[in-house]
Amino acid sequence: MNMNKPVRVGLIGAGAIGSFHGESIARRLHNAQLAAIADPSPDAARRLADRLDCPIAVTQAEEIIANPDIDAVVIAAPARFHASLVVSAARARKAVFCEKPMALTLDEADMAIEAARVAGVPLQVGFNRRYDKAWAEARETIVSGGLGTPQLLRSLTRDPCLADPARVPVWAIFFETLIHDFDTLRFLNPGSEVTEVYAIADALVRPDFKERGLRDTALVSMKFDNGAMATAEANFHAVYGYDVRGEVFGSGGMVTMGDVRRSSLTRFAAEGVCSASTRLNLDLFHDGYTAQLASFMEAVRSGVVQGPIGEDARAALAIALACVHSVNERRILAPYGVARA
Amino acid sequence: MNMNKPVRVGLIGAGAIGSFHGESIARRLHNAQLAAIADPSPDAARRLADRLDCPIAVTQAEEIIANPDIDAVVIAAPARFHASLVVSAARARKAVFCEKPMALTLDEADMAIEAARVAGVPLQVGFNRRYDKAWAEARETIVSGGLGTPQLLRSLTRDPCLADPARVPVWAIFFETLIHDFDTLRFLNPGSEVTEVYAIADALVRPDFKERGLRDTALVSMKFDNGAMATAEANFHAVYGYDVRGEVFGSGGMVTMGDVRRSSLTRFAAEGVCSASTRLNLDLFHDGYTAQLASFMEAVRSGVVQGPIGEDARAALAIALACVHSVNERRILAPYGVARA
Amino acid sequence: MNMNKPVRVGLIGAGAIGSFHGESIARRLHNAQLAAIADPSPDAARRLADRLDCPIAVTQAEEIIANPDIDAVVIAAPARFHASLVVSAARARKAVFCEKPMALTLDEADMAIEAARVAGVPLQVGFNRRYDKAWAEARETIVSGGLGTPQLLRSLTRDPCLADPARVPVWAIFFETLIHDFDTLRFLNPGSEVTEVYAIADALVRPDFKERGLRDTALVSMKFDNGAMATAEANFHAVYGYDVRGEVFGSGGMVTMGDVRRSSLTRFAAEGVCSASTRLNLDLFHDGYTAQLASFMEAVRSGVVQGPIGEDARAALAIALACVHSVNERRILAPYGVARA
Amino acid sequence: MNMNKPVRVGLIGAGAIGSFHGESIARRLHNAQLAAIADPSPDAARRLADRLDCPIAVTQAEEIIANPDIDAVVIAAPARFHASLVVSAARARKAVFCEKPMALTLDEADMAIEAARVAGVPLQVGFNRRYDKAWAEARETIVSGGLGTPQLLRSLTRDPCLADPARVPVWAIFFETLIHDFDTLRFLNPGSEVTEVYAIADALVRPDFKERGLRDTALVSMKFDNGAMATAEANFHAVYGYDVRGEVFGSGGMVTMGDVRRSSLTRFAAEGVCSASTRLNLDLFHDGYTAQLASFMEAVRSGVVQGPIGEDARAALAIALACVHSVNERRILAPYGVARA
Repeated sequence: MNMNKPVRVGLIGAGAIGSFHGESIARRLHNAQLAAIADPSPDAARRLADRLDCPIAVTQAEEIIANPDIDAVVIAAPARFHASLVVSAARARKAVFCEKPMALTLDEADMAIEAARVAGVPLQVGFNRRYDKAWAEARETIVSGGLGTPQLLRSLTRDPCLADPARVPVWAIFFETLIHDFDTLRFLNPGSEVTEVYAIADALVRPDFKERGLRDTALVSMKFDNGAMATAEANFHAVYGYDVRGEVFGSGGMVTMGDVRRSSLTRFAAEGVCSASTRLNLDLFHDGYTAQLASFMEAVRSGVVQGPIGEDARAALAIALACVHSVNERRILAPYGVARA
Repeated sequence: MNMNKPVRVGLIGAGAIGSFHGESIARRLHNAQLAAIADPSPDAARRLADRLDCPIAVTQAEEIIANPDIDAVVIAAPARFHASLVVSAARARKAVFCEKPMALTLDEADMAIEAARVAGVPLQVGFNRRYDKAWAEARETIVSGGLGTPQLLRSLTRDPCLADPARVPVWAIFFETLIHDFDTLRFLNPGSEVTEVYAIADALVRPDFKERGLRDTALVSMKFDNGAMATAEANFHAVYGYDVRGEVFGSGGMVTMGDVRRSSLTRFAAEGVCSASTRLNLDLFHDGYTAQLASFMEAVRSGVVQGPIGEDARAALAIALACVHSVNERRILAPYGVARA
Repeated sequence: MNMNKPVRVGLIGAGAIGSFHGESIARRLHNAQLAAIADPSPDAARRLADRLDCPIAVTQAEEIIANPDIDAVVIAAPARFHASLVVSAARARKAVFCEKPMALTLDEADMAIEAARVAGVPLQVGFNRRYDKAWAEARETIVSGGLGTPQLLRSLTRDPCLADPARVPVWAIFFETLIHDFDTLRFLNPGSEVTEVYAIADALVRPDFKERGLRDTALVSMKFDNGAMATAEANFHAVYGYDVRGEVFGSGGMVTMGDVRRSSLTRFAAEGVCSASTRLNLDLFHDGYTAQLASFMEAVRSGVVQGPIGEDARAALAIALACVHSVNERRILAPYGVARA
Repeated sequence: MNMNKPVRVGLIGAGAIGSFHGESIARRLHNAQLAAIADPSPDAARRLADRLDCPIAVTQAEEIIANPDIDAVVIAAPARFHASLVVSAARARKAVFCEKPMALTLDEADMAIEAARVAGVPLQVGFNRRYDKAWAEARETIVSGGLGTPQLLRSLTRDPCLADPARVPVWAIFFETLIHDFDTLRFLNPGSEVTEVYAIADALVRPDFKERGLRDTALVSMKFDNGAMATAEANFHAVYGYDVRGEVFGSGGMVTMGDVRRSSLTRFAAEGVCSASTRLNLDLFHDGYTAQLASFMEAVRSGVVQGPIGEDARAALAIALACVHSVNERRILAPYGVARA
């Protein structure tokens, strides 16, 4: 495409993260243009479009996908629609940015990857943690050998408030939350794959919703093919804020990432030494969310995705699926499609 | 002005901070437009304009000031031109954002304030530290009574590298560096004014330039009319990075602000526990610099400046001038124009 | 016993931790007296006795146990001798402090507990982490309800240097290292027991010793009967120092414990912001090791053990044994003797 | 003296710090013996003696000084008695440890120094901060060149609670509190002396006691003969605890020392990230207070004082005296007896 023309982006999904991505495209990114918004709620689409001076608001994603003036789509619809939207968009030769999880089954994931490959369009996945400064620096440190061989890794996600357990999809803790941590662990142990998964999951925050399938707390332990051991953990109700951290211990040292404190302000009072905490993922990862879309705009122009791709989404999904089975069957599992020694 | 029309901004000065402000206007701020750039170096103006898709690049600030299509100017020229540019721009009915120091003499400061008052245009000054999250939160804590009465304050600025001492204007340590700290201390002790100043300044980094007037290290102690005591200190060569911190101790507790660490990454190695540090003011205050211009754009639309105004610039300048005299005369001084009990 | 007479203590084992305990008794504790030292190496016993002005140095533990002038023994011999020494000492009516692990099999543990019970002597076990200020405060916070119900726990131990892998007993990583973490997790989840264990262990530091049974890296995940999930991890070669940390996340918040930094000194240099790290367990837990013996002296006088008792040692051992089986059989196990729902 | 015989110490003063020193001698130090306690309150002396198994409790310091069985005295009486007690004790050939300030006038200081010199006895002064691990490491870093030349220094002391302003001696803020900081700054800028002092002091905590001479808040700025600039500040009522910190910035970097947090426990709760704070000097400097007496015991045996000596006490006093004059006369002063260029 013409490198000077702004990238014209269609946004699919005007929820919380979709709105933030829309804002990034319209306001925070250079040479990108928010050309259309689709959301099944006409109000949601319209309000966001008005706020961001976006000319088109529709209820059908297909209208965006069919629009020849649009170069790229950002998919922020509910997870169950992701894979088929990727396939449609790719077939329409749009560059695709898809929120995580890209798919809910390995077959879907394979179809999405294949559609992008056949169409020759960039396909990038929304593993934003890779774009946070600390995580990116950790990866650089590791790749450059600064930690030696990774031996023990940890990644965790704690959401600040489980407001309405009825709206949490079944197994969301693996497919939508811990999928970030699975990608992060792969990102921080480059070139290695998970060979063994053992997962525990429970409804500890809201035991009254356990029968309806809620799992709000989970702990996963993993083994990688380079010997490294890892844990991922998640909880949906951290009263102190939005807490995302990582740790990589290797033969040459350790790095830790993540800090829930909101700013450099520290308050010293009768009750002790205190810092306010970050409450929203959109605050904690404001810059990372923006940086990943900037990287996607680069991919649209260059045709080369620097960030996480369909195969990364598939690998993280394979771990999530193994977790579901591990919980159901109370045993240790290998992610599907990963060779065992 | 029409609230929907973008604010058309002329940038005066295409140096480091001018370029960053230009970028903020062109890329990071909504509904602002970089309409023209002036710099005595035609190359500097042109290169920046090209990079930021700005249609006009000139060598004379007056061309921008005379341009009827321009709503507001951002003055980032060398300090000695600030006051007269403010006066010219105000007379031409432009809203004015002026980098610190707004003036180098109290008379100039008074003229600038008066020109803006007469023209009825907003005049905002580049004390960006007020817009950093930690400092803004500190101010809120103090205003809301969370610290009781301030009793001991501290503000410091340490620049990372004194590359070329020959290019440092005489007394820049007070007029250009510590002026930030003087404003910060007033900001954090709201409603009070400095009544007594004692300053020490020396060329400790480059003693070989002392005879040519260099002062690269300074320590100022101050008394406020509410009894609070304060120190401000500066140094031009902190090998570990760009270090800006603040501390307010009051009857009800303490707050501290500032952290030179670059990200939340911590590295644990044979030599200990280490974090990389921030090297550039443009990194440390990236968000604050942007937020102050966003606030200025609000001021252009609403006519009301929420941030630091001409009178704040004057008050900080009065302290800086008292510092110069205190150093020269080796005695304690009251800032000019501040009533003594 | 006479409350004013010093407690006369016999030390069994003059290695690193034995020597430190000897010093605590002779120098750091009030109203305790180091009456005798036994070590199979006559030199080791004699040198320590000379240094600490201890009148008796012998090679046979039994000489200490048979000595009617001795009130209490501190057992710091190699782990394989612990249980039988506890039994002998208890039968001789000595109060017993035994380093961890108190036993290597559940039968031995039961015999030791029974011997102390029958003799009516205090039996305390060397889980020193309970006496570190941060861990003790964490326990208080949890017991007082400050964290709500524990949901996710973590405990880790990283030793600074695996000098000679040939001298590491088989499964020492579970029996001698992680046994601390198993006790810590029980201590921090009061009233709950582990019902499920899954362990991974490998020789990642020294793969060349794997065939000889070395396991230098391990990760254990656990489920408690109150629903809480926990991980424990260990590694024998942390280049940055002796790293022991804990974390408890509950419905009401989180606590973290542990800091590898050696002092409050922070150094800011060209390479960043750095703190020196603690290299030795005897440094990190200097105060905790001493406090646990002070607590034992109280137990000798009062007859009541406030710290960890034989049953705590047994419970931690049951987890360690389950780990060994879990690694061997690559499956999830319940610690023996813990009722499953 | 016989190197194996315990040092027999007489304690003069059974107040808070005297009691702690008594405890250190009786309980925490090897080969030291608390032989006698003097306090004008017979009850105070007796109670402490009973608690610490000390055989002699008297009301007159002279009884201790005249006792031929006593090797050394620890002077923890009120400041106004220090110098004459040093003189008497030295004349009686006792080794002398004297709490700060050693004297309240330079003449007294000179007499004390001279008395010790003539008698050939060790004279050590209670500047305990030198024995805190972080401050000692800072000094080592500086002496070994790790910071280059010191350029900006800071030392502060904040006491947690001004309970009874009526009991604070006039100018105690300089003579008893900031005297620590004056010594610390000299300790951290080795080989340099203060040439210029400017002090502000006020009754901000309890303005109702200002007329009676109370000064509860003070700020001192100083210049050293190597160009370094320093501040010292104190306040008697820090609601968040006992706060002592230091900072040295030099051509090669910076060190900071001090941390008010009580342990490594951090609590994450709805109100943010919090750590409990240290409330007592005896907690914050528990180890430093003990280490300085251990160092004194070495001095008694070897005859050589490694810690701060009479001349250090005198130099810190000279700064304190200059502060008093600076406050009274509102001008900049040189400490008496320090040569000016």
